[in-house]
Amino acid sequence: MISDLVSSYPISGRRFSVSYRLSGDEQEARAKARDICLEQTVEFPDALIPDGVIRDQILGRVERFEAGPDGGYAAKISYAVEVAGGELTQLLNTVFGNISIKPGIRVEGLELPDEALRSFKGPRFGRSGLRERLHVPHRPLLCTALKPLGLSAQGLAELAYRFALGGIDIIKDDHGLADQGFAGFHERVRLCAEAVLRANRESGQRSIYVPNVTAPVDAIHSRARFAKEQGAGGLLIAPGLAGLDSMRRLAEDDGIGLPIFSHPAFQGTYVLGREHGISHQVLFGQLPRLAGADATIYPNFGGRFAFTQAECQSIVRGTEMVMGSMRPIFPSPGGGMSLDRVSEMVDAYGQDVVLLIGGGLMTQGSDLAENCRHFRKLVETTTG
Amino acid sequence: MISDLVSSYPISGRRFSVSYRLSGDEQEARAKARDICLEQTVEFPDALIPDGVIRDQILGRVERFEAGPDGGYAAKISYAVEVAGGELTQLLNTVFGNISIKPGIRVEGLELPDEALRSFKGPRFGRSGLRERLHVPHRPLLCTALKPLGLSAQGLAELAYRFALGGIDIIKDDHGLADQGFAGFHERVRLCAEAVLRANRESGQRSIYVPNVTAPVDAIHSRARFAKEQGAGGLLIAPGLAGLDSMRRLAEDDGIGLPIFSHPAFQGTYVLGREHGISHQVLFGQLPRLAGADATIYPNFGGRFAFTQAECQSIVRGTEMVMGSMRPIFPSPGGGMSLDRVSEMVDAYGQDVVLLIGGGLMTQGSDLAENCRHFRKLVETTTG
Repeated sequence: MISDLVSSYPISGRRFSVSYRLSGDEQEARAKARDICLEQTVEFPDALIPDGVIRDQILGRVERFEAGPDGGYAAKISYAVEVAGGELTQLLNTVFGNISIKPGIRVEGLELPDEALRSFKGPRFGRSGLRERLHVPHRPLLCTALKPLGLSAQGLAELAYRFALGGIDIIKDDHGLADQGFAGFHERVRLCAEAVLRANRESGQRSIYVPNVTAPVDAIHSRARFAKEQGAGGLLIAPGLAGLDSMRRLAEDDGIGLPIFSHPAFQGTYVLGREHGISHQVLFGQLPRLAGADATIYPNFGGRFAFTQAECQSIVRGTEMVMGSMRPIFPSPGGGMSLDRVSEMVDAYGQDVVLLIGGGLMTQGSDLAENCRHFRKLVETTTG
Repeated sequence: MISDLVSSYPISGRRFSVSYRLSGDEQEARAKARDICLEQTVEFPDALIPDGVIRDQILGRVERFEAGPDGGYAAKISYAVEVAGGELTQLLNTVFGNISIKPGIRVEGLELPDEALRSFKGPRFGRSGLRERLHVPHRPLLCTALKPLGLSAQGLAELAYRFALGGIDIIKDDHGLADQGFAGFHERVRLCAEAVLRANRESGQRSIYVPNVTAPVDAIHSRARFAKEQGAGGLLIAPGLAGLDSMRRLAEDDGIGLPIFSHPAFQGTYVLGREHGISHQVLFGQLPRLAGADATIYPNFGGRFAFTQAECQSIVRGTEMVMGSMRPIFPSPGGGMSLDRVSEMVDAYGQDVVLLIGGGLMTQGSDLAENCRHFRKLVETTTG
């Protein structure tokens, strides 16, 4: 009966692939791979799947299966490009929708051919575009955060002014600054943007203020437009809170057109399990890039979070590996960093990195602008 | 210096609370609790936090700390209502933003006083409203899914017609049906809605078609409006794919006003770790309810997913526990269910449940409408 109801829509034969790490012994892992092919596409009993296009094309296909490097098995499974249908939401669903609920499955990598990428614009600026805007052709970019929550808009603007005078390239809102009464969005953005522009006029530098537009979906674009009008130079958004597709939409909005900084809040759980979830490379590298981020913020190794150096390096891979013609984006490690770790960070990341130091700039000494100059000098001397 | 920059915004003193499960020995768990208070609010070195409102009010506060029932420790931490600022995105951030990236922390429960709920409308229909619309005052509601992916819009409509004739109350799109060429959204919704309305006219029943509007954020509302115009009786959306706040916005849209069914795709990782993530009660009970879902779909125990009966019961608790004046919503267990498990499901859930059987209705016999009548009869006889 089902076979009479099948669509005649033509399938191109082009497929995208997902590498999964599967737990268990070989038999269990092979069963998991077969199950993924069903669960992520037809979600239907195998015995009832009609022969023809559904079985041959729409069903997932195990392209490779082998023992993994760290125990477990590595399976590469491909899906017809038409299954994702050109929408990020359905692409995510195909990659890890229902199987996110099954233990022992971890997304390790995405291989997206041009046909799967065609409907996504990707990063508008990427590394080179952001460097151009900031007039910093080579050295690592410097970033800090306005905080703590509870300061007034004037207070945050005062901090922003000093950071900018001290030569910090990117002065972002802490991601917990939303539209609370302490420092409401519009007043804060107006004052902070103005403070950074004023510091730039005095110093001749090109610092940018990057407000947080993680917000109710119906407010994201109006806040972003307001921020642009006030002179903000970028936008911070946490896809784990606002939705990855909200970030994509923001990045693709030609009426805004500012660099996008992706923040990892609420997403950590995906990477914390060794046996299930999503790899660091995909979650903090490939996915934000696909969704249009120009820089991806994540916790550096050795800070107050628990990422290893190898995990951080896998994020860097995700920011620059070939994904059609999508531009490489900046890794932006932070989270409990301090000035005495700058040379280690530059050693680990090289020049193409946004170094994020927040509270660490405050503990250094009471002259904030001087601390920033010290940070900048450290970076300049370390990288020549 | 920082103390000169503090906002004079008045804090009401009203707080909401989060119960966390913390791993480690007592000393480690106490350190985690203190860290959460900082990380989720000021994200700032403790030594630099000025005395006064930031330390006294804005900082998280450990309200209770005790040994947990299953090893680990249970900490109840409260936050000023003003920190969440009336936005779901910032509420999620306060509950689990940065600490999602730290191991050994699991959100177990939310206690949200009226002051914290005021800005959320919650479920428009809830259990009683959905029962009214369906004219089913007492028995469990019956639900099935249109699939597999690869059928034509006409084919899916043919299935929808037979399901409705057979007495299924809620006929939903499989969550993998987006806007692919096989059965594009508009044609599918037009034909399926029409098919269900036609079956209703013939049978005198009140079945509803519930299309999937999980989609790019800029398409959700236009698709939902189209669905309503075509006669759809509800909307399916996966907050893990589209963003929880997109579901909230959809549910609150008075121009649409249809019952919302929340699907768990892409969210599973949060509940799979015993030691970190988010509890079943919160993720599949409290959060979708807060974001306006009228029913929450999740994998039943004993199906092709790995939830236990206790975990499923905790979801039910989340759907009905006191949350201000928010209506209780329907639990909707599914995922590999079959007709021979109906009586067990009714035993476990009672009357207030949406029983979701998808592929299991197809394997029963070749007369689909007859299989549905059998399902309905089983439910009616089991529940009197």
